[in-house]
Amino acid sequence: MRIAQDRLTFDTAPREIREITRELAEWSARQGILNGLLTVFIRHTSASPLIQKNYSPDVRHDLDEFLDRLAPQDPSRYRHNDEGPDDMPAHLKAMLTQVTLTIPGMGARLQLGTSKGVFLLGHPARPHRRELVLTLIGE
Amino acid sequence: MRIAQDRLTFDTAPREIREITRELAEWSARQGILNGLLTVFIRHTSASPLIQKNYSPDVRHDLDEFLDRLAPQDPSRYRHNDEGPDDMPAHLKAMLTQVTLTIPGMGARLQLGTSKGVFLLGHPARPHRRELVLTLIGE
Amino acid sequence: MRIAQDRLTFDTAPREIREITRELAEWSARQGILNGLLTVFIRHTSASPLIQKNYSPDVRHDLDEFLDRLAPQDPSRYRHNDEGPDDMPAHLKAMLTQVTLTIPGMGARLQLGTSKGVFLLGHPARPHRRELVLTLIGE
Repeated sequence: MRIAQDRLTFDTAPREIREITRELAEWSARQGILNGLLTVFIRHTSASPLIQKNYSPDVRHDLDEFLDRLAPQDPSRYRHNDEGPDDMPAHLKAMLTQVTLTIPGMGARLQLGTSKGVFLLGHPARPHRRELVLTLIGE
Repeated sequence: MRIAQDRLTFDTAPREIREITRELAEWSARQGILNGLLTVFIRHTSASPLIQKNYSPDVRHDLDEFLDRLAPQDPSRYRHNDEGPDDMPAHLKAMLTQVTLTIPGMGARLQLGTSKGVFLLGHPARPHRRELVLTLIGE
Repeated sequence: MRIAQDRLTFDTAPREIREITRELAEWSARQGILNGLLTVFIRHTSASPLIQKNYSPDVRHDLDEFLDRLAPQDPSRYRHNDEGPDDMPAHLKAMLTQVTLTIPGMGARLQLGTSKGVFLLGHPARPHRRELVLTLIGE
């Protein structure tokens, strides 16, 4: 049993849903751990890792619109507005979609299902630099 | 420290909330790991593992109705309708309730609280076969 | 590689959002594991661990109000009312915000971002005693 850890940085555009499957798979493959668990942790409370279908832009559009309907950018709803009108909605979306994700690897392959990818959701209406901590535990 | 991994398959009926506590506990007990972490990962984005009260069908009814109200089967709301009117709502429900769950085991027992069970939520309006990856890490 | 596990107990006031960062950091530091993963698991389905900004009471107010709007205390909406009008809303909030949370530690420090804390959300309208299981795996 071994543990490998690293920090990766990604830039997100406003409300971007950015696929990061390849980067995660490549980092994992380099660690020499065949069977284990990869944990993706985001050091922010306005972005989320999410597994979803990776072929349809319509799915990503609907995910974004759904979250926007649940937590709209409407300052009259929130007390916390001093960091911009997109800040509190971003925190609410991150609460609902979580800031951490665990994916098993078997035989050196992430066990995502068919046509599934890992996406990084940048919730705010502004671009951001995101720090992720990857942890792979296994043998 | 050791790791044990396996794939289990479950069938879900339309919008079924199916208890799988016994199957998870039995698989875990067979691995000979006393203290550790069990991670349940679903290789789909239309089903979720969930810990809930395991004695009341009313709780399960209310969970289902709540998710249906949040993400109703209403094609006018979604762009992604080409896989059926229940597909996009299922993805949204899976985003909110996650596709992975981690449960600690101590003394060879899953540390679920009193009257708690693990359920598999099959979100679509059609039956499906579901592949789960179980990973147990501990000693 | 080692595993450390323990149970901690916290009291929550009605709908309290209580910071527990210090208790988690102190427990983790005592285990002598430099690099690893801390998993916080709540043995209830009416409370949640959550990472959020730790300096603004307004953020906590908005989180609480948002969850209350999504799952209001309104018995006409639910079949499961026999444990009080706050029970089913608490289960729904726990489903959305999860009962488990994983945080990486590097160099004996939890890798929370700047101004981030871990909070324990007690969803019901009554005080409760909460049992948490902490698991730290690493080396």
